[in-house]
Amino acid sequence: MITRNDLNPDLLRAEYAVRGPVPARAKQLEAQGRKVIYCNIGNPQAFASQRPITYLRQLLALVEYPALLEDPAARPLFPGDVMAKARRILERHPSGTGAYTHEAGIPFIRKAVADFIGRRDGIPADPDHILLTDGASKGVEAAIVALLKDRRDGILIPIPQYPLYSAEIALRGGRAIGYHLDEKRHWQLREESLTAAISRARAEGTRPVAIAVINPGNPTGAVLAHENIEMIIRFARAHGLAILADEVYQENVYVSDRRFHSFAKVMHEMGEAAVSLFSFHSVSKGFLGECGHRGGYVELRNIPDDVLAQLMKLQSISLCAGVVGQLAVYVMVEPPAPGEESYARYVRERDGLLAAFKAKAEMLGRGINAIPGMSLQAPQGALYAFVRFELPAEPGVDPAGMGPEQQAAYEAQRDNAYCLALLEETGICVVPGSGFGQEPGTLHFRTTFLPSREEIEELVERLGAFHRRYVERLATRGSAVPAPAG
Amino acid sequence: MITRNDLNPDLLRAEYAVRGPVPARAKQLEAQGRKVIYCNIGNPQAFASQRPITYLRQLLALVEYPALLEDPAARPLFPGDVMAKARRILERHPSGTGAYTHEAGIPFIRKAVADFIGRRDGIPADPDHILLTDGASKGVEAAIVALLKDRRDGILIPIPQYPLYSAEIALRGGRAIGYHLDEKRHWQLREESLTAAISRARAEGTRPVAIAVINPGNPTGAVLAHENIEMIIRFARAHGLAILADEVYQENVYVSDRRFHSFAKVMHEMGEAAVSLFSFHSVSKGFLGECGHRGGYVELRNIPDDVLAQLMKLQSISLCAGVVGQLAVYVMVEPPAPGEESYARYVRERDGLLAAFKAKAEMLGRGINAIPGMSLQAPQGALYAFVRFELPAEPGVDPAGMGPEQQAAYEAQRDNAYCLALLEETGICVVPGSGFGQEPGTLHFRTTFLPSREEIEELVERLGAFHRRYVERLATRGSAVPAPAG
Repeated sequence: MITRNDLNPDLLRAEYAVRGPVPARAKQLEAQGRKVIYCNIGNPQAFASQRPITYLRQLLALVEYPALLEDPAARPLFPGDVMAKARRILERHPSGTGAYTHEAGIPFIRKAVADFIGRRDGIPADPDHILLTDGASKGVEAAIVALLKDRRDGILIPIPQYPLYSAEIALRGGRAIGYHLDEKRHWQLREESLTAAISRARAEGTRPVAIAVINPGNPTGAVLAHENIEMIIRFARAHGLAILADEVYQENVYVSDRRFHSFAKVMHEMGEAAVSLFSFHSVSKGFLGECGHRGGYVELRNIPDDVLAQLMKLQSISLCAGVVGQLAVYVMVEPPAPGEESYARYVRERDGLLAAFKAKAEMLGRGINAIPGMSLQAPQGALYAFVRFELPAEPGVDPAGMGPEQQAAYEAQRDNAYCLALLEETGICVVPGSGFGQEPGTLHFRTTFLPSREEIEELVERLGAFHRRYVERLATRGSAVPAPAG
Repeated sequence: MITRNDLNPDLLRAEYAVRGPVPARAKQLEAQGRKVIYCNIGNPQAFASQRPITYLRQLLALVEYPALLEDPAARPLFPGDVMAKARRILERHPSGTGAYTHEAGIPFIRKAVADFIGRRDGIPADPDHILLTDGASKGVEAAIVALLKDRRDGILIPIPQYPLYSAEIALRGGRAIGYHLDEKRHWQLREESLTAAISRARAEGTRPVAIAVINPGNPTGAVLAHENIEMIIRFARAHGLAILADEVYQENVYVSDRRFHSFAKVMHEMGEAAVSLFSFHSVSKGFLGECGHRGGYVELRNIPDDVLAQLMKLQSISLCAGVVGQLAVYVMVEPPAPGEESYARYVRERDGLLAAFKAKAEMLGRGINAIPGMSLQAPQGALYAFVRFELPAEPGVDPAGMGPEQQAAYEAQRDNAYCLALLEETGICVVPGSGFGQEPGTLHFRTTFLPSREEIEELVERLGAFHRRYVERLATRGSAVPAPAG
């Protein structure tokens, strides 16, 4: 029988905190009848408050079951423009949702993605350089599989980062090269931080091949400034790095003084034709929040044809992305147009969802910043806040005197214990900061702001009370374990 | 800019013939207005003759757009049992198709899969050992990623095989250990062939960790006998191998003297508790033919909990399988029951599709066996025939005098040239046998029998005429290139 020792050591090494021990414990508690507020994962439709966009679901129902298009009894159930769009899809793609497609996805949807990029950025985009994927995750995986040549190759990733990156890099036998984001300056990226990371990596014999950037940020909620993106592109060029631009939160920007700028657009403006770019987008975030449909795409720039052919081959080994996810991408990039019957409802639903995210991001930011010993850079975008919290030092323990690995392990143990206690005592499920990476000497957790406003109010209140108790126990008894009852 | 030399050499090594140069050329010809008969891929719904099972599509439409369940106007459009089933799904899984699920899939669907295995085989099955995947391909990928520890590890695969196996093994840096199926005995597996393969591998310093078996066979169409499966299990036990049982064609058996036996059932009968088993199934084949929905599952047996936990972690990194594919799996394992309103229609559609496959398999078998210089073991199951064809020797070329690699390359060049000429001259797109592996000294191609009966008749006729011309050109002119016209 296979034992753990028989398994790929790279698999054993890979960690994915978003579904780690804290969420696993939450499921156990829930099974025992406890109410859990899941703030561990950006899964909007797991909350009753996020309803799907009606237009998308109407269209999918019709393409799944085209008999509805032929039955006059179905006419009162669907707006005319949705029926017309479903018919056009089936004319252009008669096998509907039932057959494997081209390995890169259905051609007219790839064309629609290119047109979307063109409208968004005012730049040309090539449908042949767009691959539809099962969520952005599979696009990121493909890029990492393709770019890591051997065990010395490394990819720069932000600290904190979304752990898909560290997990995939570990799984494919590469090295993650962390660069620190500047918490004090709204998690922007400083060039010194990149330079320091790459020098350290080279000194350790690592060969950097790419840099991953998440904008808007996960878990930071930061929106990168235009000049920050320019700096990254110049840096990538200087060091011969490909760029992996994770732009799945591009619709999720909540502050008036920041705009989303795509790497594709900034590269085009700079006339940059030498840096290879992989840009990722997804139907799971934004306002669609269609995580369960696993739709996404990667757009490639400055990629020669023989490299493109290898990426196509990689896609073809798993045949193609799910067709329903491809159709969800189609709706994302080609929503109802002004003048169409569904337009008003679509806009109302979209704007309602985005306004609620913005209001909840602000609520959470204000509420948590008012808790003594807790602070955060209020999220400018995305679906998360990365909250910093302070704990009293433990008597006789000096983290600053430890080696870097020992200190990271000590701090991971501290933030894990904190998040587990928070879960046990309040039912709030968040992810320890060590799962994303954090500056030595700091402690964090990531929370989403997806629950309802009422739940977020409750969350802030319970969090404050919990933090006070936890700190007090630590300070007075040197232990955070609650005193036995009675 | 990234160049081909910057890419993962394992990606460069991986080959996937089903979407290789012959199908690529077919797409070009089609774009130029030529009619192509695509027999290269098991993609049933790419043919107008394969309609989806109505029940499945009705259910998916309702779960995608649950407003239909609340609108009395929708009642005449859907049978009552489908509406009731959609309601039960949404009661048990309120987020419907919109949210990420448990990394292993929706719990009640995993339970339904376990019940299905129990009914099919009369053995117990554990829902916690079932993982829902995006098609069987992703399950196979996960198993291979988990089992290959380093570059010396190898997995036994059949020759001929479905090239997913060789591609994934190459991509994950492992070694494929080919064992030959016995064409003369309906492609059954002989123990000597396994023993020879493993001895040769060990002699070359390869460490075998698993054996992949495809039953019913792809590309062979063979259905393994019960005693053949017992022999494989004993062999796996003797050599400490895990078994990867690809059983995606289990519904596709067309001969009365063969039945599908699952590895799970035979292992259970033998009381085998030491051999780790990964069994794969899919909604893409059988009679559903829902390739575009990318639904599948892997069932694990004799896998310790800490190994299971690692496989779960691997699933969690890409979040979860697409929910629509998970629902398609649900319909596969829990179709309408006798007495339900949809039952009669479901049975009629299912039996119609399976009867058509059987008739077309027989037609193709008879037709091709009547072509001089061509032969096949008429398919007992699956969706393919692996056709052997003879070409006259080229003057001055002695393949038997070549080294094994040189001979394989020579024969690959010959079967590729043949398949390309077949495509150019007749519009028939098949895959060269070298893409699957073949005995030295033999030439084959794989064809599906998915086109309509009329197209299969036409295919057999054109194939016979083409083969005569091709052989004649080779024999008289030493070249298969057609003489210039006019």
